[in-house]
Amino acid sequence: MVTSEILRVRMEKTLLHVQDSVCEAFERIDGTRFREDSWTRQEGGSGLTRVMQDGHVFEKAGVNTSTISGTMTREAAQTARVGDGNFADDSIPFFVTSISLVVHPCNPLAPTSHAHYRYFELGDGTAPAAWSSFSGSADLTPYYFFEEDATHFHRIHKAACDRYDTALYPRFKQACDDYFYLSHRHEHRGVGGIFLGNLNTYDQKMLADLTTSCAEAFLPAYLPIVERRKDLPFTKSHTRWQRLRRGRYVEFNLVNDRGTAFGLKTGGRIESILMSLPPVAGWEYDYQPDPRSEEARLLEVLKNPRQWA
Amino acid sequence: MVTSEILRVRMEKTLLHVQDSVCEAFERIDGTRFREDSWTRQEGGSGLTRVMQDGHVFEKAGVNTSTISGTMTREAAQTARVGDGNFADDSIPFFVTSISLVVHPCNPLAPTSHAHYRYFELGDGTAPAAWSSFSGSADLTPYYFFEEDATHFHRIHKAACDRYDTALYPRFKQACDDYFYLSHRHEHRGVGGIFLGNLNTYDQKMLADLTTSCAEAFLPAYLPIVERRKDLPFTKSHTRWQRLRRGRYVEFNLVNDRGTAFGLKTGGRIESILMSLPPVAGWEYDYQPDPRSEEARLLEVLKNPRQWA
Repeated sequence: MVTSEILRVRMEKTLLHVQDSVCEAFERIDGTRFREDSWTRQEGGSGLTRVMQDGHVFEKAGVNTSTISGTMTREAAQTARVGDGNFADDSIPFFVTSISLVVHPCNPLAPTSHAHYRYFELGDGTAPAAWSSFSGSADLTPYYFFEEDATHFHRIHKAACDRYDTALYPRFKQACDDYFYLSHRHEHRGVGGIFLGNLNTYDQKMLADLTTSCAEAFLPAYLPIVERRKDLPFTKSHTRWQRLRRGRYVEFNLVNDRGTAFGLKTGGRIESILMSLPPVAGWEYDYQPDPRSEEARLLEVLKNPRQWA
Repeated sequence: MVTSEILRVRMEKTLLHVQDSVCEAFERIDGTRFREDSWTRQEGGSGLTRVMQDGHVFEKAGVNTSTISGTMTREAAQTARVGDGNFADDSIPFFVTSISLVVHPCNPLAPTSHAHYRYFELGDGTAPAAWSSFSGSADLTPYYFFEEDATHFHRIHKAACDRYDTALYPRFKQACDDYFYLSHRHEHRGVGGIFLGNLNTYDQKMLADLTTSCAEAFLPAYLPIVERRKDLPFTKSHTRWQRLRRGRYVEFNLVNDRGTAFGLKTGGRIESILMSLPPVAGWEYDYQPDPRSEEARLLEVLKNPRQWA
């Protein structure tokens, strides 16, 4: 068995395990079961989409895994930013295993959160990969700002990175602020988290361990926050603001997000790609919160990222 | 006065007049006043944004005009598809006057509609334009399908075109179906309308007349439809479907629409560009209407465009 095959199997198993733990924990806290759709891709590969809608705690939560192999076009490879950009022909063999999850809680005082981890290889698996990459991200998008939530989310993810190299978290934190940014709104999507990138100087074993550590950090980073916010009382005015901020979430995912663009461009399974979109979102013309309000306090944080851990 | 200056003034006045008539008619039928924001652009030009929100008939309606001049980058010119693509330098003088309107009625049985007309010139106005173009479109997006509404909307627009050349409407109708298409959903945004393009074989006077005729057709094409649908009784189930279909409207505008992409890319006034987005939209995972339902009947029409006039 070549190295490539061992890594492929290991990463697929790891991500399926994370999917199971997250779904079990969400079902326990919510009392609602996930709906499960397993699908196969004609050209090779399969996926497991799990979605909860109209739960008691989660208005919509999607936790998807997929493992796909086949060939991709040069254009798709460029959109996905894989490989070195120089491809001999237009039919490039690849393998990718990934998890994507997005959680939109009902209570506007509980933040939305997202995580995505991926192992990508170019090659057909019969020899060591021609090119490979570990990547991923996790971020927190509050509607109302609680400093302790942002701090907790970052601390858990920092610890997951520090085990391997304390230089990683500061880089990943900055990359996350840079990526989850709505340039047309001049604001960040939320209070950030981590974004794994430029990892080529590390060996494959360390990267697999690091990616596993980060993916497993999601649940302890996010669940305690939902637990302390899910039963707080809220008003229609909180819900209105949640709806407007979810509109921004839609804008980011459809305008700025490279992952979504890649999925739409390459004809991925549309319901799995767009399950990230919130159950309800809204747009009001030129809505400006009172400068002394909680809503304005959130905007201030979104426009000026801080150090949290 | 050079030809360019006469056309500039004429088209700006025409579009301002259309804005006035549409807003007056909407205010009359709704009983709510438009909020008006006039804005100026530091680099040259100004706009008049008119928005009605939470009216009795219109949940959100925006009717915007703007007249802008200055210089644009080569990249912006390419995104906007203006000129012949060959630009000597990266600072290209331009002039554009346009109207954009989007109407989202409250009643799910009343369709959303959109229109956009534009006169665009490359040049600084001191000499006949180096390149110019008239363009525009109007389309109807029903949530529930009434054949007579689609037919009426198309007939009025056909008549507006037929006055100049009966070859135009069939071309514009087809171009509209082609443009307002969500490739990732394999469905059209609505039942279409007209999309003016490839007009270079006609003279400027005829094009100015045609564009005026089409822009003035919007009100008689759309208003009677709203009048006969606005007071029909509806249920929560109609509203749920309206919210999901509005989600598709958001997808088109943020993913597929070149005008929105251009606005976001070139740093236009964000609240005016995105006023087209619906007040409320939603995404439910893999929602499939009953095959014999009214909802499925609409989807059938969106997937298979027909001849209406």
